[in-house]
Amino acid sequence: MSSTRTSLEGLPETLLMGPGPSMVHPSTLRAMAAPSLGHLDPRFLAIMDETVGMLRRVFATTNPITLPLSGTGTAGMEAALANAIEPEDRVIVVVNGYFGDRMAEMARRLGGEVDVVEVPWGKAVDPEQVEEVARRGRAPRVLAMVHAETSTGVLQPIEPLAALARQYDALLVVDAVTSLGGVPVEVDRAGVDLCYSGSQKCLSAPPGLAPFTASPRAMRRLEARKRDVFSWYLDLRLVAAYWGQQRVYHHTAPVHMVYALHRALERVLEEGLEARWQRHRRVARALWAGLEALGLQLAVTDPALRIASLTTVRVPEGVDDAGVRRTLLEEFGIEIGGGLGPWKGQVWRIGTMGESAALRHVSRLVAALGELLRRQGWRNDVTGALAAVTEAARRE
Amino acid sequence: MSSTRTSLEGLPETLLMGPGPSMVHPSTLRAMAAPSLGHLDPRFLAIMDETVGMLRRVFATTNPITLPLSGTGTAGMEAALANAIEPEDRVIVVVNGYFGDRMAEMARRLGGEVDVVEVPWGKAVDPEQVEEVARRGRAPRVLAMVHAETSTGVLQPIEPLAALARQYDALLVVDAVTSLGGVPVEVDRAGVDLCYSGSQKCLSAPPGLAPFTASPRAMRRLEARKRDVFSWYLDLRLVAAYWGQQRVYHHTAPVHMVYALHRALERVLEEGLEARWQRHRRVARALWAGLEALGLQLAVTDPALRIASLTTVRVPEGVDDAGVRRTLLEEFGIEIGGGLGPWKGQVWRIGTMGESAALRHVSRLVAALGELLRRQGWRNDVTGALAAVTEAARRE
Repeated sequence: MSSTRTSLEGLPETLLMGPGPSMVHPSTLRAMAAPSLGHLDPRFLAIMDETVGMLRRVFATTNPITLPLSGTGTAGMEAALANAIEPEDRVIVVVNGYFGDRMAEMARRLGGEVDVVEVPWGKAVDPEQVEEVARRGRAPRVLAMVHAETSTGVLQPIEPLAALARQYDALLVVDAVTSLGGVPVEVDRAGVDLCYSGSQKCLSAPPGLAPFTASPRAMRRLEARKRDVFSWYLDLRLVAAYWGQQRVYHHTAPVHMVYALHRALERVLEEGLEARWQRHRRVARALWAGLEALGLQLAVTDPALRIASLTTVRVPEGVDDAGVRRTLLEEFGIEIGGGLGPWKGQVWRIGTMGESAALRHVSRLVAALGELLRRQGWRNDVTGALAAVTEAARRE
Repeated sequence: MSSTRTSLEGLPETLLMGPGPSMVHPSTLRAMAAPSLGHLDPRFLAIMDETVGMLRRVFATTNPITLPLSGTGTAGMEAALANAIEPEDRVIVVVNGYFGDRMAEMARRLGGEVDVVEVPWGKAVDPEQVEEVARRGRAPRVLAMVHAETSTGVLQPIEPLAALARQYDALLVVDAVTSLGGVPVEVDRAGVDLCYSGSQKCLSAPPGLAPFTASPRAMRRLEARKRDVFSWYLDLRLVAAYWGQQRVYHHTAPVHMVYALHRALERVLEEGLEARWQRHRRVARALWAGLEALGLQLAVTDPALRIASLTTVRVPEGVDDAGVRRTLLEEFGIEIGGGLGPWKGQVWRIGTMGESAALRHVSRLVAALGELLRRQGWRNDVTGALAAVTEAARRE
């Protein structure tokens, strides 16, 4: 047994620049290893309250129901849809990538009558297209969209779809897994009803919690449900009674994960949301410049649609996708992601999220990638690419 | 912000002797803070595989589908029931406490036609009673029971109900949240189809994961389902495709929680299951002797029905339940639990789980409790109680 333990203890630092998890700050790791407390200990309840307070600031919301769900971002997706949808409700899901597709699949399992508005991978949806679908047939009860589609690198603007949702009295569900804390997500201002994220992306806590918020409008709809939510574990009313002041026992909160999220949120707010968004933009611009200077092609051609925290870049013809990623990890200690679904083998996915969004990390990645491409017979100018990184970061 | 951070960092050690979470060993906390890895990093996949291998040994099973679900014990409960039950299936749930009741509620939400076999709190069910219910009406498809009912301290023997489940071709679902790793749970030998636990009880990892196993018989039933599992997040076939060798992306595993569970399982197996069960029995016997020597009454009168990892003791008349627990925590740094549901204010719940199951902890608790009762006008002999603890531990 001791050999396996040693393998865990001997893990080297890896630079995480994939689609998540992102790097975790040492102080967050230390916070996670703080002494255990019971989940109803007054000192833990205080930490819960502080965590909720910080989450509200990060979501830019006053929603009373704001909390970290005890599951990953996918549990957040399921909670949003399971609470919002009743069987036979008409649900419209915008699908322009893998995670939109997952939402549609979940909505179907929950008994929703799902209409999918599909757009090609790499594109955002035109609100007109959604309205056209909404207009046909029964009024939709739920409209669901992915804000930052991690499979494609496309940012879908929230406001136009929020306006549509109001018009049809539908609840707007927004997946902010890859955007929250790195790209502006202003729940109240944008008019989002149910919004969730993951702890391990731009917030840079370890994976395992799903920050979540629900508008009073969503909660009223929930109170008026005809039948109970299928999921007892993710029933918002029950979860909220534990995280709220009633403290009704529901499940044992993942105490140490909450410690970690608490510390990670402190770091977000110490930096400030505006500064953080700006950092993500600056670092992304530097990454894009570096990749293009290496002769690579970004998969999302319209810069306005790109996500600052997740970049997709085309794997050049003749280059061994998996081989490059493997060598990058094994020899250079850098993780990036491969493509999903139809983009498998076609793109690399590079995350610049939270603690991973730093110029020094981008330079290190660009240099390593340049060297690996050179080994595959690619002719490129790494010196020039590194200069482009620095140059692009200076602009604005 | 810095003041809240300090509060987290300055947390004193608390002796956790409530119904869970239990104490976490320092090496497990250290393992949890190991460097982050991506959830598809080959080194993390190796840690996953080792974790699965160790879980199989702890569950005493060869079930291929054995893994830690990314949620708490309650997520384990929901996963077992959501995968086993199809709408309109007849489901029998044994209810002799709070958690049996929760199972029944979940089964109803999932569309099951639920028959509850209810027994008074503090008692175990007579298999005859279950058979009587099974005989009436349609054959049950699922039979669900709580092995160690954390609300009452009663251990429900598995084998007789397993035999019944076979007889009716029903799947047997067993909640082993409070028993696994402290009290014998032998999945294959006992004939359990779906079994789940929590990481934070007798395994002494932090809360946040639900060890889970499913028999080939359960998986065949699952493959033959007429409709999809409501929950996409907890759909066993999808979860298993990620934890299995296919590595199909499903969700981002809570990497650091898996580190912690890995290390906690190593400790379980280093001690050995037999030795661990014996330690739990010895420590429980010592606790019971100490409590009785203080003049307290155990709530479960039949010693054969008591759980070695969770003891319920009556709050004596005239004694301030919440006041004692608060002072115990604030002045003595020891957490014990209060009663749930009908036993609220009636009992204390004392956990001797995993790392918390040690004689030195029992002595410390008995001494503190004796002193607190003395302050409430109770006349007792703490010296004698401590001697009784030592004496009882020596027996066997």
